[in-house]
Amino acid sequence: MGNILDHISGPADLKQLSLTESKQLAAEIREFLLHHISKTGGHLSSNLGVVELTIALHQVFDTPTDQIVWDVGHQAYVHKILTGRRDRFDTLRQKDGLSGFPKMEESPYDAFNTGHATTSISAAYGIAKARDVLGKTYEVVAVIGDGSMTGGMAYEAMNNAGKDKTKLIIILNDNEMSISRNVGSMSSHLNRLRTRRSYLLGKRGIRRAAEKFPVLRPAYAAVNFVKNKAKYLFVKGILFEELGFTYLGPVDGHDIHDLTQVLQQAKAVNGPVVVHVKTVKGKGYTPAERNAARYHGVSAFEVETGDALCENQESWSDVLGEELTWMARRDPRVVAVTAAMPQGTGLDKLAKHMPQRLYDVGIAEEHAVTFAAGMAKAGLRPVVAIYSSFLQRSYDQILHDVCLPRLPVILAIDRSGVVGEDGETHQGIFDIAYLSHMPGLTIMAPSGKEELRDMLQFAYRLEKPVAIRYPKGAVPSRPEAAQAKIELGKSRVVCEGAQVAIVAVGCCLEEALKAARQMKQEGALPTVVDARFVSPIDKALLEKLLRTHSLLITIEDGVYRGGFGMQVAALANQIGAACSVRCLSFPNQFLAQDSRRHILEEYGISAEGIIKAWKEKNEQTLGS
Amino acid sequence: MGNILDHISGPADLKQLSLTESKQLAAEIREFLLHHISKTGGHLSSNLGVVELTIALHQVFDTPTDQIVWDVGHQAYVHKILTGRRDRFDTLRQKDGLSGFPKMEESPYDAFNTGHATTSISAAYGIAKARDVLGKTYEVVAVIGDGSMTGGMAYEAMNNAGKDKTKLIIILNDNEMSISRNVGSMSSHLNRLRTRRSYLLGKRGIRRAAEKFPVLRPAYAAVNFVKNKAKYLFVKGILFEELGFTYLGPVDGHDIHDLTQVLQQAKAVNGPVVVHVKTVKGKGYTPAERNAARYHGVSAFEVETGDALCENQESWSDVLGEELTWMARRDPRVVAVTAAMPQGTGLDKLAKHMPQRLYDVGIAEEHAVTFAAGMAKAGLRPVVAIYSSFLQRSYDQILHDVCLPRLPVILAIDRSGVVGEDGETHQGIFDIAYLSHMPGLTIMAPSGKEELRDMLQFAYRLEKPVAIRYPKGAVPSRPEAAQAKIELGKSRVVCEGAQVAIVAVGCCLEEALKAARQMKQEGALPTVVDARFVSPIDKALLEKLLRTHSLLITIEDGVYRGGFGMQVAALANQIGAACSVRCLSFPNQFLAQDSRRHILEEYGISAEGIIKAWKEKNEQTLGS
Repeated sequence: MGNILDHISGPADLKQLSLTESKQLAAEIREFLLHHISKTGGHLSSNLGVVELTIALHQVFDTPTDQIVWDVGHQAYVHKILTGRRDRFDTLRQKDGLSGFPKMEESPYDAFNTGHATTSISAAYGIAKARDVLGKTYEVVAVIGDGSMTGGMAYEAMNNAGKDKTKLIIILNDNEMSISRNVGSMSSHLNRLRTRRSYLLGKRGIRRAAEKFPVLRPAYAAVNFVKNKAKYLFVKGILFEELGFTYLGPVDGHDIHDLTQVLQQAKAVNGPVVVHVKTVKGKGYTPAERNAARYHGVSAFEVETGDALCENQESWSDVLGEELTWMARRDPRVVAVTAAMPQGTGLDKLAKHMPQRLYDVGIAEEHAVTFAAGMAKAGLRPVVAIYSSFLQRSYDQILHDVCLPRLPVILAIDRSGVVGEDGETHQGIFDIAYLSHMPGLTIMAPSGKEELRDMLQFAYRLEKPVAIRYPKGAVPSRPEAAQAKIELGKSRVVCEGAQVAIVAVGCCLEEALKAARQMKQEGALPTVVDARFVSPIDKALLEKLLRTHSLLITIEDGVYRGGFGMQVAALANQIGAACSVRCLSFPNQFLAQDSRRHILEEYGISAEGIIKAWKEKNEQTLGS
Repeated sequence: MGNILDHISGPADLKQLSLTESKQLAAEIREFLLHHISKTGGHLSSNLGVVELTIALHQVFDTPTDQIVWDVGHQAYVHKILTGRRDRFDTLRQKDGLSGFPKMEESPYDAFNTGHATTSISAAYGIAKARDVLGKTYEVVAVIGDGSMTGGMAYEAMNNAGKDKTKLIIILNDNEMSISRNVGSMSSHLNRLRTRRSYLLGKRGIRRAAEKFPVLRPAYAAVNFVKNKAKYLFVKGILFEELGFTYLGPVDGHDIHDLTQVLQQAKAVNGPVVVHVKTVKGKGYTPAERNAARYHGVSAFEVETGDALCENQESWSDVLGEELTWMARRDPRVVAVTAAMPQGTGLDKLAKHMPQRLYDVGIAEEHAVTFAAGMAKAGLRPVVAIYSSFLQRSYDQILHDVCLPRLPVILAIDRSGVVGEDGETHQGIFDIAYLSHMPGLTIMAPSGKEELRDMLQFAYRLEKPVAIRYPKGAVPSRPEAAQAKIELGKSRVVCEGAQVAIVAVGCCLEEALKAARQMKQEGALPTVVDARFVSPIDKALLEKLLRTHSLLITIEDGVYRGGFGMQVAALANQIGAACSVRCLSFPNQFLAQDSRRHILEEYGISAEGIIKAWKEKNEQTLGS
């Protein structure tokens, strides 16, 4: 049969394949994925799960004229492989390489940029509306996982799209998972659909029932009842039907023949339609089928065993999980809330010992925060752990439901700063800017694991809204930080010097210390400060520093506008200090994928950046 | 029968009333509402609609031990009247007076602060969880309108709450309205429920059907089918049942007897339950029943005729609506999107002439923005008009779905700055702070109607993400502004002076001009600038001003942190300018209700504030 994948240069080639060849292609793609992702890292399980679905989609639809919107988008690797990007696959998630998510600027086959969950139906419905308004006829398809269906936006969009006859196809990729096993009653609903013995309920039986028992008629006018409704009402997607969608499925998502059949049917429906596709996450690779969550987003690994190639170091998330477990043991009021990321946030550690203390609400960041606010109001002490970039979706809830009523909710913001390979959509560089202006919200950033623990304890005692932000990856130990007690709005002076002051936010302290060592070698003695508080800032100390130093360098892993450095620079002007403030932070732009370290270096959020700012100032002074 | 309301000092008194007395009380409350709201202004229709419901709730539940969370909260006036706040009702929505929304700090009967839609189920579920964890037994009730049910958070919360057996009562207050007539398929779903002839479908008929036709059994195991499911499946809230809630109703929301009965039933359910209550918005006041949207939020009016007491002036929203209609006539790609506020945003003007060009998605701000992004991607030119404070809920969608892919979506941000009487939850003072750091988002603020028109045209031609912010209320005319073409990132110099520069954002230009006139009388000649662009700021001009003036005063109707003034102050430090920057803006706190004018004056966002800053600087200079 030879190698089929090598001869696929675009979707047109897929349309020539026989069913047997298509199946062979699926096997080759699985091999290809394992081979590459085991080297580059990336999203494995979800892509193994949609191999047949992606082949079938490109066989049935005419891309790129027809538009496929991949929700979240981490499952679009197969789509990329089949749309002319196979040869660049070894650059996946690397600087200037293929993105791990769909991007309009990367390929005309990527109909919409995704990254955050639950946007696809809204975007696809918008595209479909535009198509109708502009008198075009192409198909619009959104592919959304059952995990993403727990997000409220999906419902807002279905509610809106279900009301009219705009042609729109939603593929519900039901793999019983979001990142971790998903939760909530939508999940139960899908489970019930799966277990109903649909085939026992033929059309005939229902028509007979309706004929004999007029009582069944008024509910759904008799004819429609039998013709349109009955076949789904009992056995299938009542929820979707109620929202105005025609429901097709469930269909085996690993059977290319059945998939192409049902997709053809969907194409023929003149209005909004949901196709329920059952897939297995990790399909075809035993370690991933057994533990799909572990293989959701992976680093490089050994294909035979599934073992990771590099050792796991203790992470910031680990420390959160441990400290929270400790707190929960001591106070029955302490509970944790997350939005489908118990493993990523370290909360699985809490769940292991006290499963009833972890509330995983599914991919529903908005609800997570207001739910926690309700808990706090009624006497619990919730800690909400969510990634920085996903917490963006809770902006209004943090402001309106936590800060305004001053409720003691602790936000544990994981993956703050740059996350690296996931790229633009996932960088956590906006949190200081979007949280700093919220009245009454205390924002802290720890420089190491001891400080993270102390800050959690401090937040717990404060009994007010608090956010603690910390990055992805390995956590350093800074036992010396534990010597200085956390006090509201007070920074920690690490060493007092003269002329130059370096004020570092959170994990950036490491770079500040590195730079200070080098500066000492060159004869300078900088003051080094661990900012600790991003809000409120330590005005008294900063004013003192601004009045006694000629250069103050701020360093933070966030954007400049609305960030920490900008506040300090403005303060300098407000108090009339002559001190020049150099802000090391990101420019206001989206940061492309690269390793976390490279990105920080590239933008000078580094010891080198500090040295450079110091030397520039020296030159200016000498020059003037 | 005498005056009953006068003798109600708290819910305990309600429990003593006979049904006849309760009905009489309802009539007295309606009179009371009309009498007061016609003087103070406020939310009329929604409160007239929940008179009986509120009486029944307080008769059946033991508040404040039992917790009632009012979604949005503008319908909580009756609740306030019955919980000891009747005497303060003439202070409603005034400085230091009763809030128009529930507030925990105002009364122990207000279980949770609300203001923005669709938070109640999340908060109530959180409270209920906390109750269980802490071993308490009180009841938790959320009262949510059908309009709020179009918001995704409601679904996230129902999805989460429906999965377990936590006791929780949701009252669905179904009045077929949100602010305007509501939209979407949830609305159709509720309509279908209302129109089904439920009583034709007795239990008996269905049981007989199931007995004769085994084919009906497997879907819902036979016994359960008949006992638990069937009575709702055909006739009632399938959607709610599918999410795991027991469904009761629909019940006539103006029949106190039926209401107390069904609420007692709901109390007896051991798990999550939805009570579907049908109410009429504006009930009992003919003008309001006929046009509930007009009487949603009202100013003072004449009770007999329903006519407003003050003349309507042309508003910023009117100008948006007119200009957009003009644009839509010229370009078939121009469409408008709003989230249940076509009247408030002036889009009703567009809808009047071209109804098919307005997409009202319901209370679903998140979907609204991503839906528009999809439209923009596929060739339309959407303008999304939403109030500043409600747009907070679209933070992530603006950043992730509009700015990242650089799509030509225009955000028309109405009610920016302070809105006045609606208080903390509704002030639009954060938009500059939460939008300014978004990469690639152009943000403008017009100083009058001509500039608003020109900015819309400019945004249309720019074909990139744009936000235009403007306040509530009457729009001034500034024909002179139209003389200076809008150029990207360029401010307009209104008059060139010396020593003092005043840079005004949007509508604050009026105060700057007023102050300049006064300063001229005192012999000074300030430079006055209409900033026009909040992002990107006009760096070239600002640098020039900072280098040539000794005082630069910024004035904006937003918060300081992350705001325009802070950017300018930081810039002054960055370029080493000696100029002192005085930022007139709001401190980072929530602003309590008062008239818009008073709030601006109180915080010095006014001509007086400018004069004061100028004189302080003069004194400092003389003193030094």
